[in-house]
Amino acid sequence: MKLLEEEIRSRGQILPGNVLKVNSFLNHKIDPMLLEKMAEEWYQLFKNDNINKVVTIESSGIAMAILVALKFKCELVFAKKGKSSTLGNVLTASVYSYTKSKEVLISIERGYIKEDDNVLIIDDFLANGSAAEGLISIIQYAKANVKGIGIAIEKGFQDGGQKLRSQGYRVESLAIIDKMDYDTQTIEFKQI
Amino acid sequence: MKLLEEEIRSRGQILPGNVLKVNSFLNHKIDPMLLEKMAEEWYQLFKNDNINKVVTIESSGIAMAILVALKFKCELVFAKKGKSSTLGNVLTASVYSYTKSKEVLISIERGYIKEDDNVLIIDDFLANGSAAEGLISIIQYAKANVKGIGIAIEKGFQDGGQKLRSQGYRVESLAIIDKMDYDTQTIEFKQI
Repeated sequence: MKLLEEEIRSRGQILPGNVLKVNSFLNHKIDPMLLEKMAEEWYQLFKNDNINKVVTIESSGIAMAILVALKFKCELVFAKKGKSSTLGNVLTASVYSYTKSKEVLISIERGYIKEDDNVLIIDDFLANGSAAEGLISIIQYAKANVKGIGIAIEKGFQDGGQKLRSQGYRVESLAIIDKMDYDTQTIEFKQI
Repeated sequence: MKLLEEEIRSRGQILPGNVLKVNSFLNHKIDPMLLEKMAEEWYQLFKNDNINKVVTIESSGIAMAILVALKFKCELVFAKKGKSSTLGNVLTASVYSYTKSKEVLISIERGYIKEDDNVLIIDDFLANGSAAEGLISIIQYAKANVKGIGIAIEKGFQDGGQKLRSQGYRVESLAIIDKMDYDTQTIEFKQI
C-alpha cells in the first residue's frame, strides 16, 4: 500500500536494533484517516472469505482492528496481556515481546471465539511471528478457522512472514520492509 | 443513551466489589456497531467545540476513541501504561487502577499534545476519576485545553464524576449507574 509506505518513510523513525518507531501516526498518536484506508484495503482483500470475527492483541492492534471489524460488521476480540481481575475462564498463549524483552501471557475468554468462526487476525507489526502464532494457537484451540492475517508493517528481513506463509496461512501485509538502516535512516520496501 | 443502558442490562455482569463486567461487548469482545453509535453520540455532543485531538488511555478506551477521532477527522493519542522501549521523552502521570489494585504510570510522548489543542478525553469507565485526572494533568502540562470528557459508563455512586464536574469539566457519560447489586444482579441508571 503506497500510502502507508510513504507515511513510514516520512514519519517513521529507525531506532537501533531494527526497531521501527511509528508512534507518531500508527500506534501511540494515531491518524484515523490513514487507518480507515488501511481497513478498507484489508476489507477488499478478505471480503470474500466470510469473515465473522476479527481478532487482535492489545494495545497497538486495537485501533486498526475495530475499523476492520466495522467494515465486516462483525465482532472484534482483542487478546489481553497479563492478568486482569475481570477475566474469567480464559484460553491463553505465551508470546515473546521484543520491545518489552520478555514473555507475555495473552488471554481470550473462553467462548468469545466460537467453533467454526472465520477469523481475520489484524496486527500492526509482524517480525518473528510470535504474536500471530500465539493468537493462532488460541483460535485453533477454539476450533475456529484462521482465514487470514492482515498486518500493517511486516519486517521482511525477519522470518515471521515466511514461517506463517509456509504453514499455509494467508498473510496480507500492507507494507513489507526489505531493509532498514539506522545509520542512514533509509528504508527499502518489497514491491508487493 | 438508551441503547447502551439496554446492552449493559442484558449483557453486563455484576461482580463482587462493585465491578461491572462488560467484556462481552465493550472492552474485550467488542460490538463495533454499538461503538459506532456511541461515537456518533459524543460527536453530536461536542461537535461545536473545535475538538482537534482525542485522548484516551490503553487499552479499553482505544476502540471507542478511534471512532470518535474519525468523526472529528482529528488525531487520537492514547496514553501508554508502564514502560516501552520505543517511547522517547514523555509526560507522565500516576493513575490508580482498581481492577489491577496498583498505581500505574501512564505516559504520552512530549509534543503529541500541543499547546492550545482542544482535547476531548474518551474512556470506557469513570469511577473514582483517577484515570481522567491523570490524563487531565498531562494535557494541562502540555498547555492544551480539556474541552470535555466523554465516558461510556459512569459509576454515579463513586465520586469521580462529581469531582470532575465541580472542577468545571464537562463530563458526558452515555450511561450513569446509580446503583448496582451483586446479589440480585440488578442495576439502576440515572435518568440523563
